[in-house]
Parts: sequence; structure tokens; C-alpha cells
Amino acid sequence: MSKEIGITVKKNENFSEWYTQVVIKAELADYAPVKGLIVLRPYGYSIWESLKDSLDEKLKSTGHQNGFLPVLIPESLLSKESEHFAGFNPEVFWVTHAGDSEIGDRLALRPTSETLAYSMYSKWIKSWRDLPLKINFWNTALRAEIKSTKPFLRTSEFLWQEGHTVHATKEEAEKEVMSILEIYKKTVEEELAIPVITGKKTDKEKFVGAVYTTTMEAIMPDGKALQMGTSHFLGQNFSKPFEIKFLDKENIENFAWQTSWGVSWRLIGALIMVHGDDKGLVLPPRVSPIQIVIVPIYYSESDKEHIIKKSKEIEQILSKKKIRVHIDIRDEFTPGYKFHDWEMKGVPLRIEIGPKDLAKGKIVLVRRDNQKKTDLSFENVENGIDSMLNEIQQNLFERAKSFLVEKTQVISDFEKFKSAIEDGLFLNSPWCGDQKCEEKIKEITGADIRVIPFNNKKSSEPCISCKKPSKENVIFARGY
Amino acid sequence: MSKEIGITVKKNENFSEWYTQVVIKAELADYAPVKGLIVLRPYGYSIWESLKDSLDEKLKSTGHQNGFLPVLIPESLLSKESEHFAGFNPEVFWVTHAGDSEIGDRLALRPTSETLAYSMYSKWIKSWRDLPLKINFWNTALRAEIKSTKPFLRTSEFLWQEGHTVHATKEEAEKEVMSILEIYKKTVEEELAIPVITGKKTDKEKFVGAVYTTTMEAIMPDGKALQMGTSHFLGQNFSKPFEIKFLDKENIENFAWQTSWGVSWRLIGALIMVHGDDKGLVLPPRVSPIQIVIVPIYYSESDKEHIIKKSKEIEQILSKKKIRVHIDIRDEFTPGYKFHDWEMKGVPLRIEIGPKDLAKGKIVLVRRDNQKKTDLSFENVENGIDSMLNEIQQNLFERAKSFLVEKTQVISDFEKFKSAIEDGLFLNSPWCGDQKCEEKIKEITGADIRVIPFNNKKSSEPCISCKKPSKENVIFARGY
Repeated sequence: MSKEIGITVKKNENFSEWYTQVVIKAELADYAPVKGLIVLRPYGYSIWESLKDSLDEKLKSTGHQNGFLPVLIPESLLSKESEHFAGFNPEVFWVTHAGDSEIGDRLALRPTSETLAYSMYSKWIKSWRDLPLKINFWNTALRAEIKSTKPFLRTSEFLWQEGHTVHATKEEAEKEVMSILEIYKKTVEEELAIPVITGKKTDKEKFVGAVYTTTMEAIMPDGKALQMGTSHFLGQNFSKPFEIKFLDKENIENFAWQTSWGVSWRLIGALIMVHGDDKGLVLPPRVSPIQIVIVPIYYSESDKEHIIKKSKEIEQILSKKKIRVHIDIRDEFTPGYKFHDWEMKGVPLRIEIGPKDLAKGKIVLVRRDNQKKTDLSFENVENGIDSMLNEIQQNLFERAKSFLVEKTQVISDFEKFKSAIEDGLFLNSPWCGDQKCEEKIKEITGADIRVIPFNNKKSSEPCISCKKPSKENVIFARGY
Repeated sequence: MSKEIGITVKKNENFSEWYTQVVIKAELADYAPVKGLIVLRPYGYSIWESLKDSLDEKLKSTGHQNGFLPVLIPESLLSKESEHFAGFNPEVFWVTHAGDSEIGDRLALRPTSETLAYSMYSKWIKSWRDLPLKINFWNTALRAEIKSTKPFLRTSEFLWQEGHTVHATKEEAEKEVMSILEIYKKTVEEELAIPVITGKKTDKEKFVGAVYTTTMEAIMPDGKALQMGTSHFLGQNFSKPFEIKFLDKENIENFAWQTSWGVSWRLIGALIMVHGDDKGLVLPPRVSPIQIVIVPIYYSESDKEHIIKKSKEIEQILSKKKIRVHIDIRDEFTPGYKFHDWEMKGVPLRIEIGPKDLAKGKIVLVRRDNQKKTDLSFENVENGIDSMLNEIQQNLFERAKSFLVEKTQVISDFEKFKSAIEDGLFLNSPWCGDQKCEEKIKEITGADIRVIPFNNKKSSEPCISCKKPSKENVIFARGY
């Protein structure tokens, strides 16, 4: 395989260029003609579909339903909750014309749908009978990016889901916020094999318009944090301006309590960064479009016939077990080329079958995550493969988990803090709770408070910055 | 149930008002704050999900894959195929600003994605190895509507899928066009229980930019035709301006052959119109969000306990069979109210169970399509329900099919033609093939040529308009 076709830089030497090459060469995505926008190719979209199906099932089984909202929101509506509007205004795309006609109230392309959804909810909700209302929307959001495009991580339009729920009580709404964060964590850890730290955002970092924001954060190989999803408690901040009111069982009118939450395709960005290696993508089996690739190896026509026949038998057996399997019978490429090609595309497990294997009644399994080769006899194909896929999934998670643990350090001294941030670490450090300290640390080190972890131990050490008594330990890191 | 909650007009007295009431009161959709746009509520979106799942499965099993395209297309790209651009230009929404900054090349909101998709395809396709390329996109299209909003039928943004394929030969591309039309027909007839007539569009009615368009057309209760989906042969009309070229096995460069095709949520509009009645929606079981509603009937607390217990047993049995079942245990409504409510929402089958039924060891089944009541003993619940759901599905299709047959008449005389169009018929009439006659007929009667059916018998009668020898019989009707 020529250098130009494979990945030409090492992950730990030029991480940014490595990332771009993996995205393009593994055919996950490509740049659209407009700056800031990308196109998802089938291989990339299939990962999104797996993730979507898995999350969608969990949301439906907990009483959520899907709906559809249009992409256009009138400016007058978007500006109804002023803090929210101020937060999004600088990055809104504006539609001013339809055909040759100018539009009166200009139309925003949805940066997020709170305002539109809640103007509808206020019409639909009249009584306690209408609650809870738990609707999720699979769509895209549009926020103009000025900085250079980075597929899945920095784009002006991105695939996501946004959930918007309404409840009769504060308690029920807060329970929903946590229950969604748990669903997110489970999805990311079990499907994408990426461990996350969950907790609250600081007031500075919360969603504009929320009472508070809960988040899950993951560490990337360069030590930077990536926000993997957020679940917001909106309190009555939107129900009041949007007049979402209901009559309770005593016939008394109340403002409702709300939540909103979302994850986006940046999860695919995390997947690429966390598991990939110098050869390209490494995909966890549960979201891999192809879980097993079979590469038949032969040097004569007579071998070819027998080996392809056996390969197809194996494909049949695995397909019946709902394993996503693909045979690569392209005659124009050598087995070696095919090995590299599927390694670059991150297929978790390769089956090789050549004349000698056939004679011995076995196949060779090659794992993508650790390159290990194992022989498996034909009889054991039906039952031996599932467990190996599970092992790969588990190994990827454990590896990422060890990395997170190793890179998260408890530090209480600011000098050590500064050099540790340069080294790309997550710092578990004491903080007084004052936004001024938060801002000062950001200014000096470039690190944000990513998350105030749930159940983090209260530290006896003083605030890392001002030395006043600390309120709690929080996780500092530079972020994406 | 009060008149205001139910449908207050009869379907055959005020069809348009009836339609709107059904959409709003059955909670399928609602009007968004911007004219021309609608929101889908969960009940309506669930129908779209069923339809989508069914079609998606068929497309994937025939080698299509899904992808994602951004909604923004630069004007310079949209205008690359001039005929295509001229067709869509008047209804394009234009983005001119991002935040406070003006955008240089203004951006169109996707009216359809040929231009964007093909600019990408030209980068991806180099050799015969890259063909065929068969990608489908589930997204929305935006086309500004000036006329009054009609949910699912006339909206400025609509949910749809658009498929875009590229082939090495003309023959293969034309085969794809037909194969997709067959998949569409199968989906609409089997899932939505709506019979269609398939064939070609005339040159006047074809997609702007296509060599020819194939279509499926259905008759609505008012005798108007609704275009249910189209599949276009694009020839090399786009591959030439967009330079989609490939090297064949002899290393010779060729322009590729293309198709595009789509169906939209207007299929839900058809569903409402074709099957609905004075009580509201009537949903075919295969796409109904709830296939069976169980209404327990009781007048004392002791009855209540036993009846709800039995109802839940039945729910369990049906759920295990993957039947979408719902028990209505709302205490605040009477059984009579519940019957009307679920009838309005079109649930195909109702199970009633009261104290006398319980004593006799049976339930009562009430069909939505024909109001027929049947008793079913507890032992037969497990096996007796499936077949009834199939019967309902079949009956809805047969009823719609009879209507189509009855309302399609062979007419060769223009005076009869004019009055038949007023009566709301599909007319199978001879046509010379001249666009001038097509336009003249449209001007006088308001009827278009909806479709040139495949294998329609050549008529010995002269053209209905000019009396010259006819080329073929075609279907005339007024359209939506």
C-alpha cells in the first residue's frame, strides 16, 4: 500500500493532521463547498446511525417520544428569553429573502430549539393531564463557526438530538435531568467505549438560560477535555416568558418546570481521537459499520474457488448471528493491501483464510485493537466470535479508562498546576467557588473548570488560586 | 364527548376543513410560528418513523447506504445546471448573514441536493471500482410556499428522503430508476394501503434537469390526483457540468449515468385523506403508532381491580407479539369518551372488557375501519388478533383500490371529458403527444396529464383535444 493512501503522520507527532487524514482517508466525512460545513459519507453516517439507534431505544423505553421542528425560527421568538438570545446571537445564520422577496421578521436557522419548542408547548399544555411532556428531536443545529473547520468537532452545522421536557414539579424535572445524564453516560461508555466524568458545570460554563447544567467530560489523547453531552435544568426560566402553565388537580394554575439536553456527532470526533492509532481508525465493535472483514487468500484459481466458498459459509454463519460481516473479494487488490485498507477503516476483527488454513480446518483471527493473531477451528466459528468482539469492546474501554485515571491528578499547588496543565493533564484541584478565581486561572493557564464531579470529596486544602478556604474539588483542563 | 373536541364537519361536506381538523385534533401536527411551516407532534412523527423504517430497510437490502449533506448550498453551485436552477430559484430561502457579518456568495437552503451531492461525487468517483454509488439522504427540503399552509401537502419545509445514485452504464441507471419506483409502490401499497398508478411524467411535468421522470399517482376522495413519489433518470445532464467521470476497465474516461428519487411526508397527507372518515383518522395497522387500544369498563372498585388485572394480562400477551398496544386507564374519562377519542386518532382495533365480558371469559373487539364488533375468548387472544389486524390492513387497501378503479374512466370525447373532470374522475384518454394539447386541456379544464401509465393500451381513438391520431392513452386529472 502506498504511503499516500495510508495515514502519513504519526498520531503523537502531529495529532491534528493525523485526525484530518483519518477522517478523510477512512471515508468518514469530507469538506462541503461552504467553509465550516462537512458531508458525512456512508461509513461515517453508519456510525451515527448505530449511536442514534442505541440512544433512541433508551429514550423510548423511558417514555420519550420523537417529534419534528422546522429549522426556521423568527427573530422575535428567538429573542424572547434575553440571556439565551444574547448567548447565541453572534453565531446565528439569518434568512432574509425567499425567492426575490425580502422577509419582514428575519428568520434564524435553529441554533437550538428551546424558543420554538416552548412556543408550541405553551399551546399544548393546559392541565396536569398533559404532563409530563417528554419530546426528543433528531435534527441538526446551525451555529456559524469562524475558526477553521474540524470535522465532527468544529462545524457550522452538526447532527444532534435535542430533548425538551416539561414537568409538574421541580423534583420531577431535576430527576429527569439526572436520568438523561445517566442514559448518556451508559451510551457513551458501553457503545463508544469512552469513559466519562459526570457532574455539574460552573455558572460561568452553564447553558445560557439554564438554572444549572450537568455534563459528561472525556479526556482526549492530548490531555484536552471534550464535553460529550449536557443535560440542563431550566427551572421556570423559559416557562415564565413562554407562558407554559397548567391547571393542577386542585384547579390552580402553575408554571411548569423544564429540562433540555443534547448530544451531537462530536461523539464521533471523540471516538476517532480516543481509540485511533498510527494505522488509522480503531472502532469499538458495537458501533462499527463492519464488525468483521473476511479476507480470502489464494494464489491459484483452484484454491480461489474453495477458499471463497468457505469464506461465504463463514459469512453466512456470522450474518445469521446478526454480526455485521463483509467479505473482500476484490480481485484487483492483494491481501496485504486489503489488510491495511481495513485496518485504516478500523474494522475490529479480521478473518484470514488461505490454502493452508483450509487444509487445517481453521481460520486466522486478527484483532485491530492489539494486533493479536489467534487460530479458530471451523467448528468454533459460530460460538467463538461473539466473545472475541465483546473482549475487544471491553479492552478498548479499559484502555481508555486507565488513561483517564493515569492522567487525572490531584494537585493543590498552583506552580505544579501550571506545569501539569502544560503536560496535558486533568487536574482535580480545590476551588473556592468564586468566578473571579475561575477566570483568573483560565487567563493564566488556559484551563477551564470542566466539571464539578458528583460526590467529589471535599478537600481540606485551600483554593488553588486565592488560597481562601475551598468549597469543593473540581476538574480543571484545557478544552476543545 | 363534546362537539368541540371531536371533528365538527363531515368529510364529504367540507373536505378541506375536515382535513385540517383531523390533523390538529388527532395531534398529528400543528402550525409553527412562521407561515408555511408546521411542527410534527409525536403521534404524527411516529407514522413518519414507521414509513421511514420500512423504506429504509428496503433501500439498505438493495445496496443503498445513508449519508448526510448540510442544508446550505452556495448560490454559485446551485446555479451550475441552469435549467435546474431556473426551476427552483423562485422558491429558494436565502441566507445572507452570519451573526452581524454579511456572507459573500449567498447561501441557499437546500430545495433539493443534486448540485451539492454531485459536487462531492465528482471528488469521490475516479474509477469503475467506485461504482455504482448509491446514497440516500433522510433530511428536509425547503421551498418557500406562497399559498396557504396545508399540513403535509403544502409547507415550506418538508421531511423527505432524496436518493442520488451514479452508475457506469445507461442501462444500469435506468434499471435503478425502475427498481426504486417498485420499492416505492410496494411501500405505499403495503404499508399505507394506498393503491397507485405508476408510469412516466410528460416532458412538461418532469423534474427540472431530468431526462425523464417516473411517478406514482394516487386518487384522493375529491377525485384529485396526488403525486406520491418520483424517480428520475438524469442521464448525463448533471454528470457533465459536475464532471462526474470515471476510468473504465479499459482505462477510458467516461461520464457517469445518474438517478435521483424521493418521497416526502405528503404520503401522510394522502393517508389522512384516503382512509379517514367523519369520526377522524383511520390508520392502517402497519403504520399506526398504537395498533390496539384496550379500554377497561367498570362501575365499582372491586370490578375495577379484576378488569384492570385482566387488561394488563392481555396487554402483556400482545406486547410479546410485538403488537403496539396501549391500555387507557385514565380515571377522569368515561369509556364513551375514550371510544371517541381513540376513534378520532384512528387506532385500528379497540378491545373492550367489562364485568360481563370478564364473567364470560371473553373480550369485545371493535374494528375502526368498519365498526364491526366481535367477541373473542381469552384463550384465542394470542392467535386471533394478528389475523384481524391483517384483515383491516387488507380491507383498507381493497376499499381504496375499488374507489380508484370506479373513479378511473376511459373517455375519448372532449365534452364528456370536461364534465367528468368536474365530477372528480381520473380520465384515461387518448393524447397525440403534443405539449400544446396538454397545455390547452389544462387551460380549459384544469386537468394535467398526471401519468403515462406503463403498458397502457394504445388507443384507436384520436387525441381528445386536437383529434389527430393519438400516441397513447394517458391519465388526466386535477392535481394537488
